[in-house]
Amino acid sequence: MAKELVFGHQNPDTDAIAAAISYAYLEKQLGADTEAVALGAPNEETAYALDHFGVSAPRVIETAANEVQAVMLVDHNEPQQSVSDIADVRVSHVVDHHRISNFNTAEPLYYRAEPVGCTSTILWEMYEQHEIAIPQAIAGLMLSAIISDTLLFKSPTTTPLDRAAVVALAKIADVDYEAYGLAMLKAGTDLSAKSEAELIDLDAKSFEMNGNAVRVAQINTIDLPSVLARQTALAAAIDQEISAHDYALFVVIITNILTSDSQVLAYGAANGLAAFEKAFGKKLVDHVVELPGVVSRKKQVVPPLTAAF
Amino acid sequence: MAKELVFGHQNPDTDAIAAAISYAYLEKQLGADTEAVALGAPNEETAYALDHFGVSAPRVIETAANEVQAVMLVDHNEPQQSVSDIADVRVSHVVDHHRISNFNTAEPLYYRAEPVGCTSTILWEMYEQHEIAIPQAIAGLMLSAIISDTLLFKSPTTTPLDRAAVVALAKIADVDYEAYGLAMLKAGTDLSAKSEAELIDLDAKSFEMNGNAVRVAQINTIDLPSVLARQTALAAAIDQEISAHDYALFVVIITNILTSDSQVLAYGAANGLAAFEKAFGKKLVDHVVELPGVVSRKKQVVPPLTAAF
Repeated sequence: MAKELVFGHQNPDTDAIAAAISYAYLEKQLGADTEAVALGAPNEETAYALDHFGVSAPRVIETAANEVQAVMLVDHNEPQQSVSDIADVRVSHVVDHHRISNFNTAEPLYYRAEPVGCTSTILWEMYEQHEIAIPQAIAGLMLSAIISDTLLFKSPTTTPLDRAAVVALAKIADVDYEAYGLAMLKAGTDLSAKSEAELIDLDAKSFEMNGNAVRVAQINTIDLPSVLARQTALAAAIDQEISAHDYALFVVIITNILTSDSQVLAYGAANGLAAFEKAFGKKLVDHVVELPGVVSRKKQVVPPLTAAF
Repeated sequence: MAKELVFGHQNPDTDAIAAAISYAYLEKQLGADTEAVALGAPNEETAYALDHFGVSAPRVIETAANEVQAVMLVDHNEPQQSVSDIADVRVSHVVDHHRISNFNTAEPLYYRAEPVGCTSTILWEMYEQHEIAIPQAIAGLMLSAIISDTLLFKSPTTTPLDRAAVVALAKIADVDYEAYGLAMLKAGTDLSAKSEAELIDLDAKSFEMNGNAVRVAQINTIDLPSVLARQTALAAAIDQEISAHDYALFVVIITNILTSDSQVLAYGAANGLAAFEKAFGKKLVDHVVELPGVVSRKKQVVPPLTAAF
């Protein structure tokens, strides 16, 4: 069987990295020749998890077709979030927990999606179903991913299955998941050393909405005012990105992970800003709006924006 | 939980009907409020299976949005093969074994696809994983679907999992699957009473290939010459369909289910016929070409056509 690369989305978060490692291992046990890779270096939170469980960061690739004919995607399916030459390889497997959009194949494939909080939760189910033991370090990464995606079960994307997975994985990984999880989340919120350009690209995804290119970034913090204090410089960085990529709308969700509230910045073209205000039924004041209880890009931001466009 | 309708593709074959019944039952056991319906009446083969296992044909629907807000799709995902108002309902679940094409959602969903011979094979795995007992009649319909889709394991789409599912389901259904299967397949090949317009619509699917509308019909038979003897009248019926729907290409695969060989008719625009000849590397003679060993629309016809367009 020819080798296949397994990877998550661009600007990888903890799930994108952990799910690639975990799924590559599972498929290897099932007989495939797989290698987990990544479309970028780990962020601070992911680096904390990798270091804690003694796992090396996956090799970063720029293209896939120069190495393999087929790939397995985790934690994404939309081509603009994937490797740059995704059109030149066959996608043989997908494990994901997002909407399906602009994903087309010429042949049947293995596709497994569930509306749960984290890809790693689905992978946990798949390990169970195949009765394959999860190595301790991989269990640690999988629970890190679930804690990251659900903000320690505070996100409305959290399902009972995500909680059950974390409880089961914590036993294998031998960690107190609450204490560990909070420490890991906090490790991801040290933003002081980051430039504004880095901040708006740290956890950002592109979407195509009725012909409009939309970018939605999220910044997790335990100190919301100090991020908002950088709005002028953030706006300059956002304007550069809008010019470079012709985004109709660029949204930055700044989330207080302790209170589960967000302040949201929105910049872009007139139709983009109008769609934003329509989506949330609120007026932007100096490009800022408060969205209490909004913490999930996938569940609370992308669907209303898609509908508004 | 609000009621959801579960259905397979237009021009339902045995898998489209059996998978709807089987998946609606499984989801009901898992707590959902489901009803299996169909986008058309059963064909002769399916009627034979329903009658043999004492199951009523599902209610036929024309539209879904007048009844429910959300639906579950089996054995298809492409919108042009689905209910006419598919854009007006939310797709919450898909279980399928085809390529993914033009299928887009605004929200995360449950999607389960595997490159196996039949949707009912995946459903058999899902029953196993949820540890839910399969009622005898449903097991009979599921094995009927797998035998139908794999032509009693002769199609190249057949996987070891399809064989394992049939063996396990035959125990539950208490049938000799080889004798039953051949009788069922033969029941589907009595074409004498069908008009040419009915023949080309019996098991036909539409595809969008690089902007071209393509229709691929399949006729199973144990008497290939007597179908080919009707070519002039078939051509007239095909021309009517091409005019009505602006197909670039209309293909009819006439398959001898005993020898696993096909004669293929192709009609359409010059670019469609050129794509057809390019796809199979053969010249059409009077719109006919022999394709030995070709029995699978999904695996042996749609991918080369897609590439050629």
